[in-house]
Amino acid sequence: MNKIEIQKIGIVGAGNLAWHIAAGINNSGLDLVGVYNRTSGKAEELAARLNTKVVTNFNAFRQCDLILLLVKDDAIREMAAQLQQSKAIIAHTSGNTSLEVLFPHQKTGVFYPLQTFSKDVAVNLNKVPILVEGSTDQIENGLYELASRLSKKVYKINSQQRRRLHVAAGFANNFANHMLKQAYDICEENDIPFEVLSPLIKETIEKIKTVTPAQAQTGPAVRHDEKTIKIHKDLLEGSHLELYELITKDIERTYK
Amino acid sequence: MNKIEIQKIGIVGAGNLAWHIAAGINNSGLDLVGVYNRTSGKAEELAARLNTKVVTNFNAFRQCDLILLLVKDDAIREMAAQLQQSKAIIAHTSGNTSLEVLFPHQKTGVFYPLQTFSKDVAVNLNKVPILVEGSTDQIENGLYELASRLSKKVYKINSQQRRRLHVAAGFANNFANHMLKQAYDICEENDIPFEVLSPLIKETIEKIKTVTPAQAQTGPAVRHDEKTIKIHKDLLEGSHLELYELITKDIERTYK
Repeated sequence: MNKIEIQKIGIVGAGNLAWHIAAGINNSGLDLVGVYNRTSGKAEELAARLNTKVVTNFNAFRQCDLILLLVKDDAIREMAAQLQQSKAIIAHTSGNTSLEVLFPHQKTGVFYPLQTFSKDVAVNLNKVPILVEGSTDQIENGLYELASRLSKKVYKINSQQRRRLHVAAGFANNFANHMLKQAYDICEENDIPFEVLSPLIKETIEKIKTVTPAQAQTGPAVRHDEKTIKIHKDLLEGSHLELYELITKDIERTYK
Repeated sequence: MNKIEIQKIGIVGAGNLAWHIAAGINNSGLDLVGVYNRTSGKAEELAARLNTKVVTNFNAFRQCDLILLLVKDDAIREMAAQLQQSKAIIAHTSGNTSLEVLFPHQKTGVFYPLQTFSKDVAVNLNKVPILVEGSTDQIENGLYELASRLSKKVYKINSQQRRRLHVAAGFANNFANHMLKQAYDICEENDIPFEVLSPLIKETIEKIKTVTPAQAQTGPAVRHDEKTIKIHKDLLEGSHLELYELITKDIERTYK
């Protein structure tokens, strides 16, 4: 089978993710054909920055090898439906969305960068993991090679794995952050500067570079130190207490 | 009132924490009078490293300004009871233990370094927050000055604050780590390398250097995105699901 080489790329979307990915594509010597966005203001801003053009009709993407849908999860299906069949691969960038959403297109793929992006914060794309999937091996390889021009960390995973990775990312980012929020609140309520905890938080992350989270686990729950747990519970109330109890129970259950 | 200057220090304990704190004291030009430990093997190892002596009778600490109890929480009370009254301040190093445990001594204090210590991992004490408390202002100031010779981050907090800080540290370290464990398990179960999540985890910590955890919160729960939450729940079971549901509910409640 022939190898697919992706050179000409059309971008749909002009949000945070589009800014970073489009810039990365541009810097990699690829051909950014243009930017389409439902509202043209943001597209003009992005196109101007990248020295490409705003596209208002999908005909302009006719010659593209790839049309990348850098839009919200909810908008992927609708956008894909509006694109006419062409030689282009249609790919979305969502962790939580399967390949099938791109139907009726046959040449489809996923190009999922696993990082949080803010427009104003510079991101070193080189270090952002990009997870690719294709409706055929050829397409998957083509997307893999494209991603490798943007990042050093490219992985092939299927839709099922990607969905589960998206959940795992929720635990690692959103839920871990919610634990930090509880710590922040307790500090604030007791007139303790939150910065006191910074070195400990940093160490939490440092540790798991060399050992697994299970090996790194410390604290009263893993030691089954009921005396300390009791002291802690007596100091807590409301949702702090509810979280404390459930997570403690789960840690005790995990490390029997 | 006269200022208390702490120069001569006796160490009780020879565990991980004792290794790091005793070394810090030694490096600060203070006078490390000796090391006492219930079992002498570890004390000998530590004393040899620090060029000080092993103490087998507390009489040797008679001239000390401070006797530092670097022992497990459970052993503090018993150790304190064994020490005879002298001019020395008696201080423990526990986050979760009040000053009163050092009764019947009157000149008491707490010297609590907030970090996890492993004997084999070098720690830059300079950056470890040390939280001090004294039974009098004089003693508290003396411990503050001592701590300032070891670390740049010294704080005065009382027993009530310290207990709550200890709980906060549990959320920030143990519970956040337990969230990372869930992510690790999900990756493992689905043949996804955990390192894919490293940049995201790093970013979670980076963010809260400039904004509060509440401002940094992202994900379906804070957006009240019930569709994504449903998809996630359908992928989970057992304790993963139980944790997901409770923490999601708590995030939704927090960000109404």
